[in-house]
Amino acid sequence: MSFAAATKVQPAGDARWTAEIEPGWEISGISNGGYLMAITARAMAGAAPGRELVSISSHFLNPGRPGPVTVEVEKMKAGRSITTIRADLKGPEKPLLTAIASFADPDRPTSPARLMQSTAPRIPPPEQCLRAIHDPNSAFPPPFVDKVQMMLHPEDASSLDGRTSGVAHVRGWLRPLDDEAADSFVVVMASDGLPPAIFTTDLPKGWTPTLDLTVHIRDSKPRTWLQLDVRTRFVTGGLLEEDVDIWDEDGKLVAHSRQLALVSL
Amino acid sequence: MSFAAATKVQPAGDARWTAEIEPGWEISGISNGGYLMAITARAMAGAAPGRELVSISSHFLNPGRPGPVTVEVEKMKAGRSITTIRADLKGPEKPLLTAIASFADPDRPTSPARLMQSTAPRIPPPEQCLRAIHDPNSAFPPPFVDKVQMMLHPEDASSLDGRTSGVAHVRGWLRPLDDEAADSFVVVMASDGLPPAIFTTDLPKGWTPTLDLTVHIRDSKPRTWLQLDVRTRFVTGGLLEEDVDIWDEDGKLVAHSRQLALVSL
Repeated sequence: MSFAAATKVQPAGDARWTAEIEPGWEISGISNGGYLMAITARAMAGAAPGRELVSISSHFLNPGRPGPVTVEVEKMKAGRSITTIRADLKGPEKPLLTAIASFADPDRPTSPARLMQSTAPRIPPPEQCLRAIHDPNSAFPPPFVDKVQMMLHPEDASSLDGRTSGVAHVRGWLRPLDDEAADSFVVVMASDGLPPAIFTTDLPKGWTPTLDLTVHIRDSKPRTWLQLDVRTRFVTGGLLEEDVDIWDEDGKLVAHSRQLALVSL
Repeated sequence: MSFAAATKVQPAGDARWTAEIEPGWEISGISNGGYLMAITARAMAGAAPGRELVSISSHFLNPGRPGPVTVEVEKMKAGRSITTIRADLKGPEKPLLTAIASFADPDRPTSPARLMQSTAPRIPPPEQCLRAIHDPNSAFPPPFVDKVQMMLHPEDASSLDGRTSGVAHVRGWLRPLDDEAADSFVVVMASDGLPPAIFTTDLPKGWTPTLDLTVHIRDSKPRTWLQLDVRTRFVTGGLLEEDVDIWDEDGKLVAHSRQLALVSL
């Protein structure tokens, strides 16, 4: 099943969409948060026709699991160049997340100002990286990784595998299965896709449920392999932040995201 | 008038609060976005009694100006350790922003795991920094700066003043006027308080209206002087992100924020 099919939404009346959380996207039995956001973002985009996703912020309410869901959307503003949409993703019993997204007119006049004070990470080509494959006898890697092609930087794969580096930093490539192209919805999912950066340190490898996640899309037309650079600087008070920079295979900036996550006891 | 008074909210019935955008908090005639978020956060906190702000995300809808506003709040989840609240800040005619915030039980059990991969910026003590004072004959510094004590790193003040550094980076101290202590609401305002980091580069100094802003509070009890480290890495496609790390006067991590802003043509 393609990523587009796994995140498909169906109109179901006024400002309401139905969708299906597909099985196989789980981490520790809970559907991946970025995948749930991608479903939500697709319904929101349906309420902003002709506009492209620029920013989406979600706060997570309850764990998602495979099965039917609804997305209720509300247009907060339809401006000359920016449309702002709010949405709730709901399971049969509980709300899963609430989100706000801004969509922009792709033909709006924009400032030519340009500054690039960081570049794509130096990752060996995908074929020289280590593919993450689900280990049915372990919590990690989780089933989710088999739903994408995830190729980890050999150094970071080694750190994840016990030879910890002490620095919370994971780099890798990610793309949908088969020949499906990446788009902004894939980018939203990818921003929550790589293993937690703290897994390369000596901290306990527990679940890190996302409290909130914001993805900023800087280019809506990536060339398909996404390069991800994932870092955590601060683990304090039972919380950690995770920053992800996303570039495409040509080294073009695609997106950046930040999440706040709980650190399991 | 204290910051607490300038952000005061009054209950006005079921899940509704009234407040006043005070004059003097403007930048180019528009009330500072962080200040509007602080008013909103205070109403949201009223719906999460006994819990402390951990994360707030706002998307901005229309410019705010001095005058009466209402905040409508909706409890999305009241969990064992996290309460999630949604809110709309509305002016007399238009909605100004929509926000989602997560509040935590301060007595919840938390993981002892700890990682600190960055430290407070090296800023000379406040009395050796340059105070930002409103220039009535210029758009910059705006009236807003007189509502706080803002002391800029001498090097960055020099870059802001025309001897640009080429690096989008501003450091400074910020605290409320008089002897008022900083709290999480001050931190939310402060996260949008310093001059745009791109003002230290050769890019045109235009207005950079915030599209969305997320503030993550890592410690809710800062010692009063806040140290801010503001950076922009990417200006592309008429957008820029701005990352702020906030520490207290003892060098303790207090918060980090990220905003996406439009670059004026």
